[in-house]
Amino acid sequence: MREFIPLATRFVDLPAGFSLRRGGALHGARIAYEAFGKINAARDNVILILTGLSPDAHVASHADNPAPGWWEAMLGPGRPIDTNRWCAICVNSLGSCKGSTGPASVDPMKGEPYRLEFPELSMEDIADAAAFTVRALGVERLACVIGASMGGMSSLALLARHPGLTRSHINISGAVHAQPFSIAIRSLQREAIQSDPHWNLGRYDEERYPKRGMLLSRKLGVISYRSAQEWNSRFGRASLDLDRRAHKKPFGLEFAVEGYLECHARRFLECFDPNCYLYLSRCIDWFDLGESCGCTADDALSRLRPEKALVIGVHTDILFPLHQQRQIAEGLRAGGADVQFLALESAVGHDAFLVDTERFGPPVGEFLSAL
Amino acid sequence: MREFIPLATRFVDLPAGFSLRRGGALHGARIAYEAFGKINAARDNVILILTGLSPDAHVASHADNPAPGWWEAMLGPGRPIDTNRWCAICVNSLGSCKGSTGPASVDPMKGEPYRLEFPELSMEDIADAAAFTVRALGVERLACVIGASMGGMSSLALLARHPGLTRSHINISGAVHAQPFSIAIRSLQREAIQSDPHWNLGRYDEERYPKRGMLLSRKLGVISYRSAQEWNSRFGRASLDLDRRAHKKPFGLEFAVEGYLECHARRFLECFDPNCYLYLSRCIDWFDLGESCGCTADDALSRLRPEKALVIGVHTDILFPLHQQRQIAEGLRAGGADVQFLALESAVGHDAFLVDTERFGPPVGEFLSAL
Repeated sequence: MREFIPLATRFVDLPAGFSLRRGGALHGARIAYEAFGKINAARDNVILILTGLSPDAHVASHADNPAPGWWEAMLGPGRPIDTNRWCAICVNSLGSCKGSTGPASVDPMKGEPYRLEFPELSMEDIADAAAFTVRALGVERLACVIGASMGGMSSLALLARHPGLTRSHINISGAVHAQPFSIAIRSLQREAIQSDPHWNLGRYDEERYPKRGMLLSRKLGVISYRSAQEWNSRFGRASLDLDRRAHKKPFGLEFAVEGYLECHARRFLECFDPNCYLYLSRCIDWFDLGESCGCTADDALSRLRPEKALVIGVHTDILFPLHQQRQIAEGLRAGGADVQFLALESAVGHDAFLVDTERFGPPVGEFLSAL
Repeated sequence: MREFIPLATRFVDLPAGFSLRRGGALHGARIAYEAFGKINAARDNVILILTGLSPDAHVASHADNPAPGWWEAMLGPGRPIDTNRWCAICVNSLGSCKGSTGPASVDPMKGEPYRLEFPELSMEDIADAAAFTVRALGVERLACVIGASMGGMSSLALLARHPGLTRSHINISGAVHAQPFSIAIRSLQREAIQSDPHWNLGRYDEERYPKRGMLLSRKLGVISYRSAQEWNSRFGRASLDLDRRAHKKPFGLEFAVEGYLECHARRFLECFDPNCYLYLSRCIDWFDLGESCGCTADDALSRLRPEKALVIGVHTDILFPLHQQRQIAEGLRAGGADVQFLALESAVGHDAFLVDTERFGPPVGEFLSAL
């Protein structure tokens, strides 16, 4: 089993017997995080960043790890999340394979990887582990929780389960729960991995690794993260260069868009564990803020009560469609929060926050400056 | 290899050495068709129906085959395609497994199924075989060619390659070529089949059949044929009945939408050959009306010159999006045709023409009545 831990990652140990919402408990578990900027004396300048399904805690480059991070343009001195003022802490999700304990980690009770023996993971567990982490670092009140995509969901779970832990909230391309179209996409991604005979009920190794299943799964992911509109202008019907046409295999790749998907998926193969992917993907489908709070999603939102919130969505997002961000904004506003809702015109779809940072940077920077 | 031929299917033999556009020729090939209604003495009441990727030629029930057809509500006495007036001929596409010669058919030269030895199939070949079929039945001029989905593409190819063969044309949810988003979806569907070890480069049999690959492929197809909007109202986040939850398999089906996809895909498994699916799917991606005619797609459309045309698309179609039908309508109009363009509000997506027949019936019926 491979874990993929960036340089400069730090760790917080979860308490022994850390209970999970759907049953079971973890022993010897830890949460990986990276910190950017310095905590001030009042400890009131801390921002928590919760990620999408696949990123690690390395948001941006810094002295201890100069490699570019997954949100490089958004965080650093003078950038929208300005580390001259803020101390940003990004937490790798519980259940991931980027340093936090997950299905690819060794179960200390058995001395071998958990694999499918890892307990059922929920979004609430991810939120609780993140809340524990910031408190363990001596932070009792956050200036802001920022979450995008799955991180938008875990942020809502955190606000619901840890009232008063944050003053403000930025929710980007998030949702109170997944819709059936998105569930269907993720269900197929999981089925692709499970259909690979090398998956072997989670008992793969380097020799027999579910590579074809992971490739298929990730390609389907990329299709759902982008938009038809972007690809029309980017690829059109262009052909793949002849030398990339997979040795004239029957039904091999021919179009530029197929080469792009192949390239993305091969890169992912090198950096994510299949069982962790299954756990995190299912946890997105399970999450339902209303069910979690024992009321309707709208009522649950109205009870979260951050002082201020910024909610951003993108017109071309097919995975977390724009009306879901509008619902978050309206629900928070109904609870009395000072909410700004932004519907961005980006062509990039769900991934826009990772790509169109020139659109996301200014509103995020302005929101944080005004705190 | 299984072929799936409805009762009452009739056949026309293609000429020996029927040449395919990308090279190769077929010997002993035939086209399956079904006829609905009677040809009149002037032989001027014949409508040709070209299908999407998977249907057979059994459009609707009749005395010789009372089973409901794939467009049951649209065709019959007093229905929109009124067999009291019209003789409708539906052709099963060349390359399919529903009676016409395709990869699942026996190659008479070798006495065994073609499988991947079948020559590369193009949309132009499907159109030529259909044109040959109606001429072999003694029809020199059609009253109308009706094509939906892939049939919308083969119709355009037929109009381009057989000028004057039809007076009018109804194009439903068609396109002059596929866009990269749709190519990506179909590419993944093909990859799912090929990734199944039982596919075995096309050399599967009943014992070792690429069932998991076909299931995945079809589920992805269904996702692209429908719309998020339809599924929100139809399934929401409803759970699957407990007894359908696949014996508590890890990561098994839990949501109603997953059960729906599974059910659809299992039905398809029983009635379509995997190699035929690969050939027809690739043929959709390859088709490009402009490239076929040696000019831009818009110029090609303007040269088709049916007297009248009806072009219909659906707002929620993500596979053949509405602007592609608008392009067809404008292109035909630029050539002088009397064109009616309808953008329907159906929530069902690409499949709307199969499901929302109460929306499609009246305009199709009125168009044909006025001929």
